[in-house]
Amino acid sequence: MGSILREGDFVVGLDVGGTKIMATALDHKFKILGRSKKRSKSRKGKDEKAEERIIRIITEALKDAGNPPIKGIGVGSPGPLDPKTGVIIDTPNLGWKNFPLAAILSEQFKVPVVVDNDVNVGTYGEWCFGEVSKCEDIVGIFPGTGIGGGIIINGKLLHGFSGAAGEVGHMTIEVDGPYCGCGKRGCLEALASRIAIAKEVAALAARGDAPYIAEHCGTDLANIRSGEIAEAIKAGEKMVESVVRKAAFYTGIAVANLINILSPEAVVLGGGLVEAMTDLYLEEVNRAVKEHAMRFLRKGVRIVPAKLGDDAVVLGAARMIAERLADGK
Amino acid sequence: MGSILREGDFVVGLDVGGTKIMATALDHKFKILGRSKKRSKSRKGKDEKAEERIIRIITEALKDAGNPPIKGIGVGSPGPLDPKTGVIIDTPNLGWKNFPLAAILSEQFKVPVVVDNDVNVGTYGEWCFGEVSKCEDIVGIFPGTGIGGGIIINGKLLHGFSGAAGEVGHMTIEVDGPYCGCGKRGCLEALASRIAIAKEVAALAARGDAPYIAEHCGTDLANIRSGEIAEAIKAGEKMVESVVRKAAFYTGIAVANLINILSPEAVVLGGGLVEAMTDLYLEEVNRAVKEHAMRFLRKGVRIVPAKLGDDAVVLGAARMIAERLADGK
Repeated sequence: MGSILREGDFVVGLDVGGTKIMATALDHKFKILGRSKKRSKSRKGKDEKAEERIIRIITEALKDAGNPPIKGIGVGSPGPLDPKTGVIIDTPNLGWKNFPLAAILSEQFKVPVVVDNDVNVGTYGEWCFGEVSKCEDIVGIFPGTGIGGGIIINGKLLHGFSGAAGEVGHMTIEVDGPYCGCGKRGCLEALASRIAIAKEVAALAARGDAPYIAEHCGTDLANIRSGEIAEAIKAGEKMVESVVRKAAFYTGIAVANLINILSPEAVVLGGGLVEAMTDLYLEEVNRAVKEHAMRFLRKGVRIVPAKLGDDAVVLGAARMIAERLADGK
Repeated sequence: MGSILREGDFVVGLDVGGTKIMATALDHKFKILGRSKKRSKSRKGKDEKAEERIIRIITEALKDAGNPPIKGIGVGSPGPLDPKTGVIIDTPNLGWKNFPLAAILSEQFKVPVVVDNDVNVGTYGEWCFGEVSKCEDIVGIFPGTGIGGGIIINGKLLHGFSGAAGEVGHMTIEVDGPYCGCGKRGCLEALASRIAIAKEVAALAARGDAPYIAEHCGTDLANIRSGEIAEAIKAGEKMVESVVRKAAFYTGIAVANLINILSPEAVVLGGGLVEAMTDLYLEEVNRAVKEHAMRFLRKGVRIVPAKLGDDAVVLGAARMIAERLADGK
């Protein structure tokens, strides 16, 4: 995919996560020239607001790149948010409610700012720079602490009427299934997120059925991370593997539903769980798609792991602001 | 929505159903001037191929309209089919396999022909001429003998990579649920189609718990039609009502999933079951959407019954060919 910026144009790509914030400065070919990455919340005692912290991280990334003059800032942020206005509707983790992030950054850096949901932006990054850049219609699904999704139709991110389309983690796939963080029941996220896996794995550890987990993580769900779950499986903990395979299969059922509904050409699987256990996820998702997607809809559909890792959001965000600038909006 | 045909231009709108075929001749304002409707299969003994029958029905509709010269033919047909080529991939009920319907009609009537999935075409008809014509993004769902769906995004029907997007009836909403006609398990269609309802209602009738059904339909699923189910509920058969409410609620869960994924502005509910029991369906679907769709995605979404009834497909098909002609393709 060619550049849409002119030589000498620079942009910022920003990834605002619940746990980490990363800013990058990029040139007109979307090469990252400088970056800064910090925890989203300052350590106890420091009284820095999230927006102050973000401005500081951007400033550091620009400094790291030699302070080039920038034309715009692209941002991926947790939702729900309004991509038209750049207002974050509600992100408890950062203390934001109806928070005008785009306006604040635009005021500070005197350039246009575009803000979109982080999973949308990550999907867009994978679509622009990853394995699936030639496909018109793709779906991205990112199982981690939560499960987010991004949908690209006819080469454009789907936002829908509310601006917040793509909540694939809250698709009901098991009526009367377990409770979800959203208050509903039977959502994919309640069945297949890292927390859904961690609760089962913690119970195994508590019962003595997962000694690797018991030794390395204990039984606190917060400490049972994707990396350790992968290590436990490598260490031969079959019951842990079975729990993860079930979650990956549920994820695959959601992928099958998306194929039946949207008929994409490719599905990108990313997120912490997939990064830690790529082969297992590809295997189970493919199995579920074979069982749960219609033959003529799944035919020829590529299911590929995300390629850009931690840089998907900053790259997608940079590309988004570049397009906005090229459109002259 | 204004006309895109010139005065003196006429088109044919054709609805090829598994049980009935209807052809209409329309003027440039999409007013139906003539029509012909027949069973899809001739009675035993007659040896008429489906395509011969279709040509005869179109000819009769044109005759009924005073034989105006036509510019094109729009067709809604059961899928799967390829809307680009107008080839029907597989419709066992009409004996078609890789059947070039568009080419055959184009050859016969010497005009351009456009063919699309009947549910897509019906959704398009409702979008062009029904209650939701001002919405950019809508979903249509039609529970009847099967459950079909149509998706319009940014004012265009979604076809996707395969050409066959919108198979909402085969969305899995109950892992390990009952078997479906497609060979999978737990599909919406297996839980909420007329056949899914009829099998429960037949069992009630067999056990003596649904005397109205037992008297008017017996226990053969083929005879338990939407109209009689509605009459049984009116006659006070509470167990029948409870079966239908459960199916309507399942339909609503699928609608909630579509809202979470696509964020449409409106959802159109049509099909035999909804036509026969509109209020019950609206009630249960709204209840399910409230329980299973995210608040910020369901906010302001209109859930409306289809307005055009049996004419949705012929009107949508006529509009489709008119647009194709206007585009000069």
